[in-house]
Amino acid sequence: MTKKVVIAVDAMGGDNSPSKVLLGISEFLKKNNDVFFRIFGPKSILESEISKITLKESFFEIINCDEVIKDNDTPLSAAKKKNTSMWQSINDVREKNSDVIISAGNTGALFVISKLNINMIKNISKPALAGLWPNKIDMNIVLDLGANVDCDEKNFEEFALMGAALHNALFPLDKSKVALLNIGSEEIKGHETIKKAYQILESKNNQLYEFCGYIEGNHIMDGDINVIVTDGFTGNVALKTAEGTANFISTELKKALTNGLIAKISSLINIYNLKKFKKRLDPRLYNGAILLGLESPVIKSHGSTDYIGFSNSLDVCVKTVNGQLIDKIKKNIIL
Amino acid sequence: MTKKVVIAVDAMGGDNSPSKVLLGISEFLKKNNDVFFRIFGPKSILESEISKITLKESFFEIINCDEVIKDNDTPLSAAKKKNTSMWQSINDVREKNSDVIISAGNTGALFVISKLNINMIKNISKPALAGLWPNKIDMNIVLDLGANVDCDEKNFEEFALMGAALHNALFPLDKSKVALLNIGSEEIKGHETIKKAYQILESKNNQLYEFCGYIEGNHIMDGDINVIVTDGFTGNVALKTAEGTANFISTELKKALTNGLIAKISSLINIYNLKKFKKRLDPRLYNGAILLGLESPVIKSHGSTDYIGFSNSLDVCVKTVNGQLIDKIKKNIIL
Repeated sequence: MTKKVVIAVDAMGGDNSPSKVLLGISEFLKKNNDVFFRIFGPKSILESEISKITLKESFFEIINCDEVIKDNDTPLSAAKKKNTSMWQSINDVREKNSDVIISAGNTGALFVISKLNINMIKNISKPALAGLWPNKIDMNIVLDLGANVDCDEKNFEEFALMGAALHNALFPLDKSKVALLNIGSEEIKGHETIKKAYQILESKNNQLYEFCGYIEGNHIMDGDINVIVTDGFTGNVALKTAEGTANFISTELKKALTNGLIAKISSLINIYNLKKFKKRLDPRLYNGAILLGLESPVIKSHGSTDYIGFSNSLDVCVKTVNGQLIDKIKKNIIL
Repeated sequence: MTKKVVIAVDAMGGDNSPSKVLLGISEFLKKNNDVFFRIFGPKSILESEISKITLKESFFEIINCDEVIKDNDTPLSAAKKKNTSMWQSINDVREKNSDVIISAGNTGALFVISKLNINMIKNISKPALAGLWPNKIDMNIVLDLGANVDCDEKNFEEFALMGAALHNALFPLDKSKVALLNIGSEEIKGHETIKKAYQILESKNNQLYEFCGYIEGNHIMDGDINVIVTDGFTGNVALKTAEGTANFISTELKKALTNGLIAKISSLINIYNLKKFKKRLDPRLYNGAILLGLESPVIKSHGSTDYIGFSNSLDVCVKTVNGQLIDKIKKNIIL
């Protein structure tokens, strides 16, 4: 029998919390029982919400913390409150009561409080935020998505390693293929830092992954490369631009498929395929960004996702632990 | 009567040239006659192609140049050949025989040869490549799309001015609204250069445009901002990521709309709306990148576009001249 994965859950972050968090846990328990939840938040509120849903007692315990992070809190002001559900759940992995921590709260606060509480992995200089992107075959890892605005070649090398370790933990059957996001595929393209990173990655030959050179933005979703490395500024712009483009196209498509009676009838006839199409692009499938570089995995669920999305990010939690993400990073650092 | 706009055309660049270039000119002349084309390329080839189509003699002349830029030419090797259609057409605007030059050839070569031939506008330190993006209302200008990998705050200020001048020339009825592409909307977000650029743009109050602060990638296509300023690395990644996302969604949608008989019938029923949707996203509508900062406008048509796309970029040529793009830049430089 596998050892149960213990997940510290910040129940008070994101829209419709704690309701969507608790429903997400309930949903997740339908398909996975090798897990135990330590749920952090105001006990009375959590108990009242839990009484409305099905949540088996043997799979969770509530750890009371009365403070919450407010909408107008900055990451730094949030980090000063030590009895919040976010702080306490992060502290819980630091104290090894849990294997992994998840929150749908403020990303900046999660980043700052995690860095304050959890040690960095030795020889990793900066943490990075990694996300899941759909591609033609399955999913990519892209990092950094915004934790580090300024990066040097050493950071890129570390991101490659950490991204590959994450890919390996989530998709153990696939070979990890790493590329640097650049503005051309030739070796001479790009800025100095990326050229130096290319030289390092090509020369070191890390066993955890194959280094495949540069990748351009229009090939991120092709599926040939599954770990895409970039600095936090470029990664954040790329991610949000992709989101914006998808929203723009969806809005235009919705008009085309619902504008008038004929359009509506036609869409109804093809409802099965259209639903499949919608599901393929459902952002809830790709929910769960991973803060890499600390001694424990820290998972960020999108604040605006619903319980299905939250449940999917619990899957990411379990896979990072069972896939031995942290060990894989540590064992494959080349000094 | 408006003075005819004289366009120097590199007939030998891009896929299916010179055929698509000549057809594009023919298409353009159907709607606009206040224009004259100086077409550069091997005379015998051009004459043979022109004999197959309708092209009124009073609207063009051919200037023979035998050399062509080859696929395996680098920008630098291309720049050494002075009797190519690209070099000669660029030289033609330098000599003031033409008002504007257009090419569908190699972007790097066009950039290098333009910089070698045409003077920079005084007090502009770097040229930038600007492109047209669809948005919910009409179109945006985004720059730089890849001419400058490294930019400082002075470059950002110049990009804002040049982008606004271009917007003003293309869309004279709309107020130009400029924003800096960043990873958050708060003043403290982003790297040092972008923060300095923010301070400059906010303090200078250029009459040509309204400075609206930062914009994130997911809002590029909203339509509230119509001039988006970024460095060439980020801009290129954003543009290509948007292209990749659009391609990914189109492929999935095509499957949903044509997979099986029911899907096909349903799509046929709604053919009118689907065609409108397709047209809304047609990249040919947005064809024509503009190299800004030189004493003459240089227009780059996408190499892979067809004659319709090329014809649309001729529209950009005419508007930059009639809209007095270069004068607008010069008159609104704040030192």
